[in-house]
Amino acid sequence: MGGDHGPSVVVAGCALALDLLPGRNIGFLLHGDRALIEAELANLPALRACAEVAHTDLVISGDEKAAVALRRGKGSSLWNAVEAIRKGEAQGAVSGGNTGALMAISKLILRMAGGLDRPAIVASWPTLRGVTAVLDVGANIDCDADQLVEFAIMGAAFYSAVHARNPAVRPTVGLLNVGSEEMKGHQEVRDANQVLRDAKLDLDYRGFVEGNDIAMGSVDVIVTDGFTGNVALKTGEGMARFFAATIREYLVSSLLSKIGALLASGALNKMRARLDPSSVNGGPLLGLNGTVVKSHGGADARGFANAVLVAANLAASDYAAEIARNLQRLADLKLKSDAEASAET
Amino acid sequence: MGGDHGPSVVVAGCALALDLLPGRNIGFLLHGDRALIEAELANLPALRACAEVAHTDLVISGDEKAAVALRRGKGSSLWNAVEAIRKGEAQGAVSGGNTGALMAISKLILRMAGGLDRPAIVASWPTLRGVTAVLDVGANIDCDADQLVEFAIMGAAFYSAVHARNPAVRPTVGLLNVGSEEMKGHQEVRDANQVLRDAKLDLDYRGFVEGNDIAMGSVDVIVTDGFTGNVALKTGEGMARFFAATIREYLVSSLLSKIGALLASGALNKMRARLDPSSVNGGPLLGLNGTVVKSHGGADARGFANAVLVAANLAASDYAAEIARNLQRLADLKLKSDAEASAET
Repeated sequence: MGGDHGPSVVVAGCALALDLLPGRNIGFLLHGDRALIEAELANLPALRACAEVAHTDLVISGDEKAAVALRRGKGSSLWNAVEAIRKGEAQGAVSGGNTGALMAISKLILRMAGGLDRPAIVASWPTLRGVTAVLDVGANIDCDADQLVEFAIMGAAFYSAVHARNPAVRPTVGLLNVGSEEMKGHQEVRDANQVLRDAKLDLDYRGFVEGNDIAMGSVDVIVTDGFTGNVALKTGEGMARFFAATIREYLVSSLLSKIGALLASGALNKMRARLDPSSVNGGPLLGLNGTVVKSHGGADARGFANAVLVAANLAASDYAAEIARNLQRLADLKLKSDAEASAET
Repeated sequence: MGGDHGPSVVVAGCALALDLLPGRNIGFLLHGDRALIEAELANLPALRACAEVAHTDLVISGDEKAAVALRRGKGSSLWNAVEAIRKGEAQGAVSGGNTGALMAISKLILRMAGGLDRPAIVASWPTLRGVTAVLDVGANIDCDADQLVEFAIMGAAFYSAVHARNPAVRPTVGLLNVGSEEMKGHQEVRDANQVLRDAKLDLDYRGFVEGNDIAMGSVDVIVTDGFTGNVALKTGEGMARFFAATIREYLVSSLLSKIGALLASGALNKMRARLDPSSVNGGPLLGLNGTVVKSHGGADARGFANAVLVAANLAASDYAAEIARNLQRLADLKLKSDAEASAET
C-alpha cells in the first residue's frame, strides 16, 4: 500500500521483478487491501500464479511519526510485511512506505543482528565504474568509531551480495574524510580508520577517500555517518537536477545545438537518469535479522522492481553470515585488547 | 609565485582583471622573483603602468606543512603579500599557493576580526539561480553552534559584497541539515538554528536546507561545518567530472547522437565548466582583519583574474563593517541573556 502510487506501482513492479528473475523460485506475499490488489493482479497471470494476498485494512500514512506508527501500526500492511519475515513466511520485505515507521517497526520485530546498534541505510550510487555503496545515508546522525566500523562490515557484505561482478574478489572499502592524511578529520573517523587498519577483518580496506571519490567510483563501499552521507546523497541529487535543467537551457541556446540536442535526445535522457544517485532504487536497512528494503516513495514500477531484486539477491546471499563472521572477529579483538589492557595494570 | 604555473598565470590573470575593472583605481603589488615577473610584464603595458614588483627569493612550496611555513616562511612571497595588507600597502591579497600556509600566516599577521575564532573558507557554488555561497568548506572540521552562527554572519556579508545583484536586498541564509523538521540533525545545528531565529541579527534567515538545495540555489548562503561542507563541495566536483565523462560516452553511442554532439559541442563545453563548483575560482578566507583570497592552484589566467575580482570587490565593500555590526549584536544579546540568567538566580 506504500509509496505515492500504492498497489498500482507495487504490483506492476513485482510482475517486472518476476520477469527479471527467471529460474529463481520466487513467490510474492502482498499485504494490504485485497480488492485493490486483486484488481491489479487480474491482468498479470504469471505474477498471480505465484502471489498470495494477505488482507488488511490498516495503512500507516507517509507522514505518521515513527513513535506513533510503533504504537498504532500493529496489523498494518507495513507491519505485517515485516512480521511475515519473523514468522518465516517471507525471506525479505520491500516497502515504498514511511521510512521512519519501517525502520522502527523492523527494529522492533526483527531486532538487530548480534551486537549491532541501529540499522544503517545504504544508497547504491551510480558512478563512473558502476555502482558504489554509500552508508549510512540518514539513519544515524551521530556515529562513533564503532558504528563506522560496523558500517564498513555491513556495507562490504551488502556489496558482495548485491553488486559484485566477481564474488571471489572482495569489495574495496573507503572511509569518507576531508583529506587522505592520517591526521585529518573528526576523531571518530580517525579512530575508525585505526581499527579498520589494525583489526584483521575480512575487508579490503583502502583508507580515507574524499567526496569526489563517490561519483568517481574509486572504491566499492564508502563509509560515513548518516549526517554527512545524507548531505552527500542529496547534494548529488541536486547536481543531477541542475545538470538536467542546464542541459535543456544550453541546448536551446542556438539553432545548431537545438538540432544537435534533438538528435542526441535519446542518449541525453538515458544519461540524466544514470547521473541521479536516487535513480538506483532499493535502499536496504542493514544490520537487522532479516532483509528489509526501502523503495523510494516516488518510484515507478521499474524502480520498485529494482528494489525487489535487491531484496531477493540480499535474502538469497551469504550476507548475514558474512556480517556475523566479521562481527565475531571484532568482538574477539576487543576481548583480546581488553585482556591485554588489564594484564598491563 | 604560487599555483601550478607561477608568475605566467598570476601576471596574465592580473592583466585580465585590470581589463575587467575599468574605472576602478586599482594597482598591483607583485611579490616574488623580479626577473620572472618583469619578463611576464614586458608585453602587458597597461598592467606594467599600475604594477610594482616587490622582490623576494623565498617561496613556500605547495607541500610545506603550515607549522613549518609559519616558522620559516617570513619574507616569502606569500608572507609579504599578506604583510603588505597589515602595512597598509595593499587592500587585499590573492594567492594561488599553499592553502594551509596562507591560512596560518594570514591569521598570524592579520589576526581575526572581533572575537572570531578561525577563518572560514567560502566556496561560490554555481547553481540553477546563479551562485550560492557555501561555508565552511574545510577550514574548521568540528564546529560548535557559535561558529555556525558566525559563518552565517560572515557568509551573508560576503554574499552582499561579491555576488548580490541588488545590494538593497539582504541575502537569504540557510543552515545545512538532513531534514527540515526542527528535531532533526546534530545538536550544534539545532542550537545554531535557535540563535539565528531568535537573535535579532540583520540576516534573512530561512531555516534548515538540505543537500539538494545547494545546486538548486534555494538560498544565497548555506552554512555548515567544514567537514560536511568539504564533502559536499568535493561530491559536487565528482558529479561534474562524472557528468563530463558520461556525456562523452553516451554521445558517441550512436551515429545520430555523434552528429548531435558535434553540433551541440559548444553548448556542452560551456555547460561542463558551469556545473563544476570548483570552476568559480576565488575562495576568500573570511573572518580576518583584511581581505585574503585563495585562488585554486590549478587555475588558469581567467580563473586567477576571477579571484582578483573577488578580492577587489570584497576590499572595496562594506563587508568588514557589516560583520562587525552583527557580531556586536550577538555579543549584546549574550550579555543580555547572561544578565537575565543571573537576575533569575
